Amino acid sequence: MDRRNFLKSGLIGAGAGTLAAGTALANNTIPKEVPEWSQILGAGVDVEPYGLPSPHEAHVRRRNVEWLTASPESSINFTPLQDLSGIITPNGLHFERHHGGVAEVDPNEHRLLIHGLVDKPLVFTLEDIKRFLPVSRFYFVECAANGGMEWRGAQLNGCQFTHGMISCCQYTGVMLSTLLNEVGIKPKGKWILAEGADSAGMNRTIPMEKALDDCMIVYAQNGEALRPAQGYPMRLLVPGFEGNMSVKWIRRLEIGDMPWFAREETSKYTDLLEDGKARMFTWVQDANSIITTPSPEKVMKHKGYNVITGLAWSGRGAIKGVDISLDGGRNWEPAQLEDPVLPKCLTRFYYPWDWQGDGKLIQSRAYDDSGYVQPTFAKQREERGLNSIYHNNSIHTWEVKPNGEVENVQLA
Amino acid sequence: MDRRNFLKSGLIGAGAGTLAAGTALANNTIPKEVPEWSQILGAGVDVEPYGLPSPHEAHVRRRNVEWLTASPESSINFTPLQDLSGIITPNGLHFERHHGGVAEVDPNEHRLLIHGLVDKPLVFTLEDIKRFLPVSRFYFVECAANGGMEWRGAQLNGCQFTHGMISCCQYTGVMLSTLLNEVGIKPKGKWILAEGADSAGMNRTIPMEKALDDCMIVYAQNGEALRPAQGYPMRLLVPGFEGNMSVKWIRRLEIGDMPWFAREETSKYTDLLEDGKARMFTWVQDANSIITTPSPEKVMKHKGYNVITGLAWSGRGAIKGVDISLDGGRNWEPAQLEDPVLPKCLTRFYYPWDWQGDGKLIQSRAYDDSGYVQPTFAKQREERGLNSIYHNNSIHTWEVKPNGEVENVQLA
Repeated sequence: MDRRNFLKSGLIGAGAGTLAAGTALANNTIPKEVPEWSQILGAGVDVEPYGLPSPHEAHVRRRNVEWLTASPESSINFTPLQDLSGIITPNGLHFERHHGGVAEVDPNEHRLLIHGLVDKPLVFTLEDIKRFLPVSRFYFVECAANGGMEWRGAQLNGCQFTHGMISCCQYTGVMLSTLLNEVGIKPKGKWILAEGADSAGMNRTIPMEKALDDCMIVYAQNGEALRPAQGYPMRLLVPGFEGNMSVKWIRRLEIGDMPWFAREETSKYTDLLEDGKARMFTWVQDANSIITTPSPEKVMKHKGYNVITGLAWSGRGAIKGVDISLDGGRNWEPAQLEDPVLPKCLTRFYYPWDWQGDGKLIQSRAYDDSGYVQPTFAKQREERGLNSIYHNNSIHTWEVKPNGEVENVQLA
Repeated sequence: MDRRNFLKSGLIGAGAGTLAAGTALANNTIPKEVPEWSQILGAGVDVEPYGLPSPHEAHVRRRNVEWLTASPESSINFTPLQDLSGIITPNGLHFERHHGGVAEVDPNEHRLLIHGLVDKPLVFTLEDIKRFLPVSRFYFVECAANGGMEWRGAQLNGCQFTHGMISCCQYTGVMLSTLLNEVGIKPKGKWILAEGADSAGMNRTIPMEKALDDCMIVYAQNGEALRPAQGYPMRLLVPGFEGNMSVKWIRRLEIGDMPWFAREETSKYTDLLEDGKARMFTWVQDANSIITTPSPEKVMKHKGYNVITGLAWSGRGAIKGVDISLDGGRNWEPAQLEDPVLPKCLTRFYYPWDWQGDGKLIQSRAYDDSGYVQPTFAKQREERGLNSIYHNNSIHTWEVKPNGEVENVQLA
């Protein structure tokens, strides 16, 4: 069977004989052993008013890297992308990034103040915010430092650690433009300081054009209230921009006529270049992608039919395509994108292939509807040097070894 | 401001002065009190590898009705629709319906057998199933008895109880057609017995046409593994059909030439009519809708600008429109549907209105892209009598009282 027909059969439903998944049954007899769980009553419906995953799935969890940060309160943990299906991140597995720990906010006492260059400064309760016309949209949130450990070659051997600072939810809230319309922005008001109610008073400057475009004040993720670690009871959401601009536990929006040059947009969250200058206000999370299976955590177990799968995203818009290379970037073939393909949202891709137990250097390369193409590792380092931490969106390489193990490698 | 402009302003972002949400700030001064959570370090990132909702959200939980069933093992609990936003049901709040409790299946020992009128009977492990090309789709799952307590007038005063036997997730698995292609269906194979591994051995007959259309064997919901209460490690998913056909803990598919007339499709899950005959194989969950706010749990608190919101769905296809009546069904106006509008999936609708503190009978009426229109309560009872439990998809009425309370009422 040649490669073309092999792949075709995989894509349309895999003809008999191609998959070798499943075991033939001798004489069409039904196995006689009845497992214990089919013989005893299970737990009733009222045991867990809020359900949890199976104990067999305890390995599917967020993980942190102890040496990466000085304290757990100003730290990060990572979403187990390698264990996820589709495009939704369950709330319990959404990555965390805090600058002063998880603020334990009383939703009844919390207030959002909008003031500065406005006609009528206003204070909003959570109930106030929920009275406006709700809007629900699917968006990713990604830390600017996602992939950052790769810059200087700290090649942690796991998809969770190389790319797990991203999650994707359906967010519900009110358009920020609606609230800004309520307070009335003065003509000189071109920038917004967004400040959180956490102990870090985490703050960032948002350009007015973006604020009026698609920013939201959100109070729900995946149908239920925001989780405390994601900003309960409300956060700013700045779609497609680096994650910390989506200020959690949002308590204050001050309208001004110039940027604030806050700590987290000057000494941090800037990209130090080789010549000592730094890129600043590099807000957009450019097109990126990662193969989640196979990966260091999801090794190859079977020769023959396999499906490469992964995630692609772009802060500029919708993913237009993902290409796959099996030879370290020399030859590329298109992967299949799964609907719905939404802007500034994770997109799932699939690529069936026939693995014969040989060593391969596998890569994914995403491009978006703005025409932007994910760059190579070499090109991005050539342009930006080795000092950066943030905005590594270069093409990632996994080495599939003949024994099926998968290793994180960097191609020169 | 007349109604048309009022509503228009609500839909496009609510002009200043219409909402009265938010409190004006005296002299543009920032409140001086700093809440405790802004003064102390919060919890670090590694406390909860699998996150949970805020303790302030403990009221958002599944609930059961003790008198409804003889035991908690063969029972139901209800999703708190009134507290949800968007279209996703978080896995922890997915309603449950079990016939023998939650089977505690070991995923490594579990097998799916496909046999009967096939060329090559096969047994699949979970790992086998995951090797096929994955498919992810957003679907609702609804119990046939959703709304059933209303048939004979047990008007529980809550949206959670009248309509909470429905949930909506992104499901991932393999197309059932792919597996049937692997075993090879013999020409006489027209029906499939689907059997669960729970202690009830819950089983139903699926017509082959539906099986080959859009049925799936799923192993993930909202990105992570199926929850035990939803069939871990794998369930059948029969999109748009009554929930118990999506057999959980699926262990066996037997291909036959006629229906099995199993217990759960003859003595149960049939609709007894007035003349003693029963409707059988009434699989499709027809177009339905419910206003979730306002509702008995979500009372009216403010005169003036309010947003009616709710959910609509159809087992026949995509929702094409939802109309709202404020006068018990005499006059109707279209609600706004929120994207994405997907087939056999929940669709969120909004309808801004200007409530002046008067009593209202509010209703929603959904219609789908097949042309089917949700019937009135009176019409459905006229056609089906009072003996039914299942397939109540009639237009539901909430009475909004002048004091803002909301009551479940039935119009003659």
